[in-house]
Amino acid sequence: MKTELENDLTRLFKKEQVLTSKEERICYSYDATNKNFLPDAVMLPHSTEDVVKLMRYAHQHKIAVVPRGAGSGYTGGSLPIQGGIVVSFEQMTKILHLDKEKKYALVEPGLITQQFADHVAQFGLLYPPDPSSVKFSTLGGNVAECAGGLKGRKYGVTRNYVLGVEAVLSSGEVIQTGILDEKDESPYDLQSLLIGSEGTLALITKIALRLVDKPQYENTVLATFDQMEDAAEVVAATTASGVIPSVLEFIDGDTLECVLEYVRLDDIEKSEAVLLIEVDGKNKEEVDQEFEEVLKICKEKKSKGLQVAQTKEDKDNLWKVRRSISASLLKIAPTKVNEDICVPASQLPTMVKRIKEISEKHRVNINTFGHAGDGNLHVTFMCDSRNKEQMERVEKAVDELFKHTLKLGGTLSGEHGIGVTKSKYLEWEVGKEGIGMMKKIKSAFDPDNIINPGKIFS
Amino acid sequence: MKTELENDLTRLFKKEQVLTSKEERICYSYDATNKNFLPDAVMLPHSTEDVVKLMRYAHQHKIAVVPRGAGSGYTGGSLPIQGGIVVSFEQMTKILHLDKEKKYALVEPGLITQQFADHVAQFGLLYPPDPSSVKFSTLGGNVAECAGGLKGRKYGVTRNYVLGVEAVLSSGEVIQTGILDEKDESPYDLQSLLIGSEGTLALITKIALRLVDKPQYENTVLATFDQMEDAAEVVAATTASGVIPSVLEFIDGDTLECVLEYVRLDDIEKSEAVLLIEVDGKNKEEVDQEFEEVLKICKEKKSKGLQVAQTKEDKDNLWKVRRSISASLLKIAPTKVNEDICVPASQLPTMVKRIKEISEKHRVNINTFGHAGDGNLHVTFMCDSRNKEQMERVEKAVDELFKHTLKLGGTLSGEHGIGVTKSKYLEWEVGKEGIGMMKKIKSAFDPDNIINPGKIFS
Repeated sequence: MKTELENDLTRLFKKEQVLTSKEERICYSYDATNKNFLPDAVMLPHSTEDVVKLMRYAHQHKIAVVPRGAGSGYTGGSLPIQGGIVVSFEQMTKILHLDKEKKYALVEPGLITQQFADHVAQFGLLYPPDPSSVKFSTLGGNVAECAGGLKGRKYGVTRNYVLGVEAVLSSGEVIQTGILDEKDESPYDLQSLLIGSEGTLALITKIALRLVDKPQYENTVLATFDQMEDAAEVVAATTASGVIPSVLEFIDGDTLECVLEYVRLDDIEKSEAVLLIEVDGKNKEEVDQEFEEVLKICKEKKSKGLQVAQTKEDKDNLWKVRRSISASLLKIAPTKVNEDICVPASQLPTMVKRIKEISEKHRVNINTFGHAGDGNLHVTFMCDSRNKEQMERVEKAVDELFKHTLKLGGTLSGEHGIGVTKSKYLEWEVGKEGIGMMKKIKSAFDPDNIINPGKIFS
Repeated sequence: MKTELENDLTRLFKKEQVLTSKEERICYSYDATNKNFLPDAVMLPHSTEDVVKLMRYAHQHKIAVVPRGAGSGYTGGSLPIQGGIVVSFEQMTKILHLDKEKKYALVEPGLITQQFADHVAQFGLLYPPDPSSVKFSTLGGNVAECAGGLKGRKYGVTRNYVLGVEAVLSSGEVIQTGILDEKDESPYDLQSLLIGSEGTLALITKIALRLVDKPQYENTVLATFDQMEDAAEVVAATTASGVIPSVLEFIDGDTLECVLEYVRLDDIEKSEAVLLIEVDGKNKEEVDQEFEEVLKICKEKKSKGLQVAQTKEDKDNLWKVRRSISASLLKIAPTKVNEDICVPASQLPTMVKRIKEISEKHRVNINTFGHAGDGNLHVTFMCDSRNKEQMERVEKAVDELFKHTLKLGGTLSGEHGIGVTKSKYLEWEVGKEGIGMMKKIKSAFDPDNIINPGKIFS
């Protein structure tokens, strides 16, 4: 027996654009949080017009609409927690335009970030934002969450590359923001508001992205330390020195051990902390000079080993350590509670100490790694969701983590968003007044609360 | 006889903080548009608490409040067009904190931009945004209008340097955004919304600003051309080459003639168009190499003279040409209608042609100069407001200017804002839907329409 919603959607769209069987809906019910909620239907738009049609229908019938990229988020941004229609952009994956001279591209939101980066790389161009999920997450999802990545400190995050967006409002109206390759100073910056709004204000249907020239020279080193704090000191000292490495990744000892078991890289020795540092640029002399400065700082801060990549292969091996973290952590505990905080680089040594204390106090194993150059740490609590007593300790530990983060002038989300998992902490960061203002903005965009309802605000 | 408003304000604040005589109010009734509107009172806050107190009072009594920096805007942003209370930040001018290591400062909004830049320069630091009004406009005004400046192309505009703001909402509540030296990914980007909102959403009371290291090497050239289009071609070609000059200023022949009469620089010859180009950086070799590339492009595009600064004095002389434009133009026509547009750098040659055609068609003298590296041109219509017939032609010419700007993918305001003078054109740029959404945001922030009413939307 078909539901009314099913009938309506199949009347409005092609048969293959509407998924309603339970099996199909289950595929769109989860994300990387391990939580899941069954949508009432799934709709696969082919164009902006499809999205307009859908939003007009949803607006008329007051049905929730939940935009979805790859469903790889860590905070529940794409979960249909109140049911409704999941709008999956998996069939809107085109590069509509690439201007190699002016260095920008116009893309559809369902395009996978790595595929886009690979495509432009053929022309000597770089799309820098590279979240760890780069191989499967989509540009639309990256814009919605304002994804960062390994190159954030030097090159900035997704926000810094968005030149314009087209978005469908809750009424079905379409707005366009930005211009394609120059500054845009329209009075209220709707574009900045949409970027990072976690799919709660409008549905993004086109994105104009800025590209840069691929750097010609890159020097890479993996530095090991006996103390986590020493590695954190290197990050703080590098930031203070004025050198901006393109990559400055921190990995703690437990995470490293786990990775080394998983990937078997014999050259790399176990240690309490590791930094993966890369310096890039278009002037060889300058790159070399900055790299020397970085190596000097590492030595001063008691690095016990510096592995400098001499060949492309060396470099790939060093990178393998970083790229294998997520997969290898999955092997050591059934549940990962993956939090994502950001503190000023100068506060990293203190933050790393605090995380150690929290781990001991609540008897929870914590693995820490992340984009330290950005002050952005992925703090991963290793646990088992079947162990209720342990999960309570994890919850307390997470609370404490966020309290210390804010105390150090940090922020609750480097790049994963607030979603459902962090909504209870948001007030700590932006205050009652900030939340009040954000709720008013949500109402201004979406008075009936039909776009991705139940997110951000608890 | 004191008005009720006068009585209330003098009860709430110190005597010297409230100005109510007609003479005093006249001083706060105008800006650079030559329009003027008398406020009912002027209030000079000393602190955030003063602004809170004032907003609570204004909120209760539904009185308009108009924030004011130096009153040097070109679009009427600080004009009290519906009367009410002008809040002048002239007594909130402190640098509250300067962190030379982490390279940021916390300032009050009334501080004059040049004074701030001079202060940080002592410590080898650069605050890059430098609108032409830098010597008298304030940081608060610069943030409200998202001021650009001569270094915009390489270093970005005010938006790119704001790390955080404190602002008082229409209810008197205070919000804070951003953190002081790292990325902030709170879900709705209130900070971006406030920057450039022309003082219509909230009153900014503190600003955290990012600083950069002062570049160690600078090469400067003044290039002259027989054809405006050739100069525009240099800009387009430089942009395409990948070299990003720190300064790339365009001046047309009429403007140059006017300047040369005013400042008497004998070394500089008259010509149809001039570019002032500066390349900077911290690596001498790279700066020299980029500069050579720029000189090569100038020669290819038929520059008839290249004056390269050999000494600090040479450089100051070349700069004098650019810095004297505003003052010297004042001498040749009683009224200047100063418009501010932005087009993609690649479209500059076409735009320059269109401006010439508009000038001929409507028989209006137009002087054009500006931050060409940004695609940002200040198009100045020379006229006499007493000549009604001429002013009608100017109005038609301005309409046509904006139409061509949008057609070339440009935007109506590079850095001056919309204010009252451009509100009728805004819909052309952002569409009915965009305006609708912006109005909803205005209502969300300011439901009673008491903060700087009558601006942006016509």
